Amino acid sequence: MAAEMRLDMVRNNWVVIATDRAMRPHDFPVSRSGGPGIDSGQFCPFCEGNEAHTPREVTACRQDGGEANTPGWKVRIVPNKYSPFRLEGDLSCSELFTQSSCKTLGQHEVLVESPEHQAQLHRLPREHIKLILNMMRERYQALAADPRVKYIQIYKNRGLFAGASLAHSHSQILALPVVPRENQGISDYHRRTGSCLLCEMIAQEREEGLRVIREMDHFLLLCPYASRFSYESWVIPKRHTAHFGDLNREETDELAFIIRDYLSAVLDSLADPSYNIVINTAPVNVPTDSGYHWYMEVIPRLIVTAGVEYATGFYMNPVAPEIAADLFRRHLEQSGGQSEQTR
Amino acid sequence: MAAEMRLDMVRNNWVVIATDRAMRPHDFPVSRSGGPGIDSGQFCPFCEGNEAHTPREVTACRQDGGEANTPGWKVRIVPNKYSPFRLEGDLSCSELFTQSSCKTLGQHEVLVESPEHQAQLHRLPREHIKLILNMMRERYQALAADPRVKYIQIYKNRGLFAGASLAHSHSQILALPVVPRENQGISDYHRRTGSCLLCEMIAQEREEGLRVIREMDHFLLLCPYASRFSYESWVIPKRHTAHFGDLNREETDELAFIIRDYLSAVLDSLADPSYNIVINTAPVNVPTDSGYHWYMEVIPRLIVTAGVEYATGFYMNPVAPEIAADLFRRHLEQSGGQSEQTR
Repeated sequence: MAAEMRLDMVRNNWVVIATDRAMRPHDFPVSRSGGPGIDSGQFCPFCEGNEAHTPREVTACRQDGGEANTPGWKVRIVPNKYSPFRLEGDLSCSELFTQSSCKTLGQHEVLVESPEHQAQLHRLPREHIKLILNMMRERYQALAADPRVKYIQIYKNRGLFAGASLAHSHSQILALPVVPRENQGISDYHRRTGSCLLCEMIAQEREEGLRVIREMDHFLLLCPYASRFSYESWVIPKRHTAHFGDLNREETDELAFIIRDYLSAVLDSLADPSYNIVINTAPVNVPTDSGYHWYMEVIPRLIVTAGVEYATGFYMNPVAPEIAADLFRRHLEQSGGQSEQTR
Repeated sequence: MAAEMRLDMVRNNWVVIATDRAMRPHDFPVSRSGGPGIDSGQFCPFCEGNEAHTPREVTACRQDGGEANTPGWKVRIVPNKYSPFRLEGDLSCSELFTQSSCKTLGQHEVLVESPEHQAQLHRLPREHIKLILNMMRERYQALAADPRVKYIQIYKNRGLFAGASLAHSHSQILALPVVPRENQGISDYHRRTGSCLLCEMIAQEREEGLRVIREMDHFLLLCPYASRFSYESWVIPKRHTAHFGDLNREETDELAFIIRDYLSAVLDSLADPSYNIVINTAPVNVPTDSGYHWYMEVIPRLIVTAGVEYATGFYMNPVAPEIAADLFRRHLEQSGGQSEQTR
């Protein structure tokens, strides 16, 4: 097998990538063992009519009015019932030799994407997806205004192999009191070179074309050079902008389009796998010229992360991003006419 | 739910730990969805008699003599057929703007732990486990002698949810041409304080007693303060020693005992989950006074790593290590008489 190690400059670690062949979707053991199948038979607290079974809502979109915590909503945000994060008091920390701890100061919210149990994000009408994105952006901005919040992670787990515990389509918003070290490579690069890593990536990928899936007015879709996960792709705003909360109206429109049409193409071409979406953004309160540049990762969960990844942080990826990009390009082309019509 | 954030000082990141309750083994969705079950019906290249179906062996233990690549072995090490790592030539690297890559210079070996398909590591006789550990140590030392090798990762994946693709019990040895950043917290701590993080942890944990599972002559068994995974435990040599390759005879004897009796207790008490074992060790060629201290992690795979962990590196652990340690202590006590007899 031909392969090479590639440096993941966002995570500051190496990825081992097979460069000459690709495991096809049905070659993956996890994919064969079941897709998003989570027991849907059990009672669902996210369904319309069951509002009393969640904590009281943070906000909801009710186009026909109606009271909070009653039916009639399109998108609903509630505190995550099982999360320990609370935005109360100050961040108290303690340290004793090798043991440092802090209070779980923060906020953890669930965005229920639809009142309907069977709905799936990429099958919702584009206007509905815009509503979801607008509410995410509003919550991002509201949480970012709290000086105790240092980082906001927006993410989605879909399916058992992506860590979801409920089938009803939802995303999560987690406001944290500390900055995770995970995307530190972006600020390291900026400190070292004075440039934005993502802007440079965009320029280089556009030049080479190999890993670009599609270039749109406001976003570039690509499979990253050092993909940690097979068939991973990134949706990067072309405008240099640090925070997800800075998403503007034109970008929201286009991102809704991408989530519907591009995410459909990904999931169709991979036989409906479990997946994560994560939004990688700047720490709250860093200026836009800090070198951060937000982007969205779409991660199909085809392989179980194994011992070597946990121990070393080295991911082993049996699918070259060039091959993944080619697959997604072809799927998008096939559905292209349809997309343009509905655009 | 009461919880706190704890700093994982080895990985330099935060873990969110529920402190007042524990998910019990049968509460985990993955555990309910199947344990180590990998299709055993298919042809197994690791079984005795099938030697021709692996790459030619690196070494094997044949107590009654016999030729290489024929039956009659007890433990057998072969190159990993599907790995791209080869210990040939020099490490050639290239860099072009945001893209850095290196050749997959290294060696990736599979240690087949028994000729029998149904054997499981923790059920093997203690003498057999000693044989395995001795062969691991010998391979570690042999690979470490090559100046191109910078880090050696020994690990084991058992079961579908731990990333294993074959049911036949085996471990893996991966010699890498670069040092992963994952356990960098250990050297950071040494640079900052002049002390060994693991030695200080041992002292503090022994003092507090809360997370200690058992103290033996040469090893301390504990659930780490900032456990990333539910029911994770560490086996730490009490002697300050940087490299796994420095394991001496008395330590090997005791470690074989631990693997059999302690690992059995872990797997019994968690209803036979998938698991990883990883050996965290110093980069090759760093001196023993560098502040590194090798140890073994036992990671039951009860929860699927989700979007938030991949995005932020923050692990969410619903089981306090104090509760996990208590469970393991009780299980070891129950099987204690038996263990002492066979010791």
